[in-house]
Amino acid sequence: MKKPSESITNYIYGKNPVLETISQNPKRINKIFFSQGINFDNRLKKINELAQKNSILVQFTNLNKFNKYFGVGEKKLTNINFQGVIASVSPIEYLDFDEFLNKKSDTYRKVVILDGVEDPHNFGAIIRTLAAASYDAVIVPKHRSCPINATVEKTSAGAINHIPVIKSNSLPAIVDTLKKNDWWIIAADGQSKDNYFEISYKDMNFAIILGAEGEGVSKTLLNKADFKIKIPSAFESLNVSAACAVIVYESIRQIHQM
Amino acid sequence: MKKPSESITNYIYGKNPVLETISQNPKRINKIFFSQGINFDNRLKKINELAQKNSILVQFTNLNKFNKYFGVGEKKLTNINFQGVIASVSPIEYLDFDEFLNKKSDTYRKVVILDGVEDPHNFGAIIRTLAAASYDAVIVPKHRSCPINATVEKTSAGAINHIPVIKSNSLPAIVDTLKKNDWWIIAADGQSKDNYFEISYKDMNFAIILGAEGEGVSKTLLNKADFKIKIPSAFESLNVSAACAVIVYESIRQIHQM
Repeated sequence: MKKPSESITNYIYGKNPVLETISQNPKRINKIFFSQGINFDNRLKKINELAQKNSILVQFTNLNKFNKYFGVGEKKLTNINFQGVIASVSPIEYLDFDEFLNKKSDTYRKVVILDGVEDPHNFGAIIRTLAAASYDAVIVPKHRSCPINATVEKTSAGAINHIPVIKSNSLPAIVDTLKKNDWWIIAADGQSKDNYFEISYKDMNFAIILGAEGEGVSKTLLNKADFKIKIPSAFESLNVSAACAVIVYESIRQIHQM
Repeated sequence: MKKPSESITNYIYGKNPVLETISQNPKRINKIFFSQGINFDNRLKKINELAQKNSILVQFTNLNKFNKYFGVGEKKLTNINFQGVIASVSPIEYLDFDEFLNKKSDTYRKVVILDGVEDPHNFGAIIRTLAAASYDAVIVPKHRSCPINATVEKTSAGAINHIPVIKSNSLPAIVDTLKKNDWWIIAADGQSKDNYFEISYKDMNFAIILGAEGEGVSKTLLNKADFKIKIPSAFESLNVSAACAVIVYESIRQIHQM
């Protein structure tokens, strides 16, 4: 049996995730299941059209069968909105860190490092934000990270096909290597005196490290950071995916506004 | 039978939501249930202590009973992390719009208007962000809004006790009244030419209108807005709670930075 941290997506559901995947990465899709008797709207028509074009097998089935087939491990699909379409897929391939690092780039690059974010909704939401903001990758640890499962694919709205995920045995080693290669390290830290908008994100390669809710970024990584930043809050800290959106878009604002 | 839009919270679960509520608003709590045999950590001890202080009934029970008692309507509690504590509560009271409007305030006020956001996770996450950013209220329509249920209370991490919720029969009427009272109206609109960071949020009362994913803000409300703003994106639009965090914290940044 595979350990949870090694578990992989074998299906995705929902119109946007399936459409996004079949458009961007049709080779990932093994087979498409439509709910019997469903009305084909534009997105379902497009999925069907791309399935024909890419010679992907299509099958019509009923909800009970969907459940029997897919409802293991994750919550039963009757409880979630699968929107009449499910695709059986090959897993997303992780990107190799060295390959990423050595890739030639004309522009500065931006990544997010997640230190212990295990909730699939947060992970999916973060990936969606990073795709919107044209970030270059997300780096997660081998342990204490979230597998790329159906919830992640769904929450990311298909953005998982746009943002490379790098899995690392050691985040401290990754951070050391990035620093040696002229990257700057920014860590979110509720105890910091600088607000997230008081540092500059311009004209440099940088990595933003976000920690799990409650625990935050580990001490080892905090000690390696060039900048520590906080988001001012009158209540508790923000949810990690909201915090990610706020910081990432501050970098976008600064880069846009010159 | 009550219609879904009229359904109300009758219980909340999780250490933070219960602790937040018993600290801020003990009168809402009718009874507290602890899981039998649970180890009392600091937060559970604090809840127990405040229950004694406020003469709130405490009962120890087992997981099956929790489920039988609470597992109706929402997904069964075995599937969710209730962290050994559940409280039966009176519903949050909605704030009257006129009362809000006529309240004396020494500072400019800021609200968010949600036009058709029906997902409880998004609604809860938005409330948590607004509490963090010291916003003054959230305004929702009577129809096509999300009831304040256990999921909202949990996702808001107790912030629902800090942010007044105003329910309105007519958002256009609310917007008209706000405008007459010297408030400025800002609507999120993917088609806008202005980015969210290109307008000023300073020295004025303002309302930010956010729409449902896909549909966006209704045309009627868009036409009434003083400013329309977009969040630049290389992928699809952001999730509504991420979009809310980005725009709300841009207003906070501007106000902080002068």
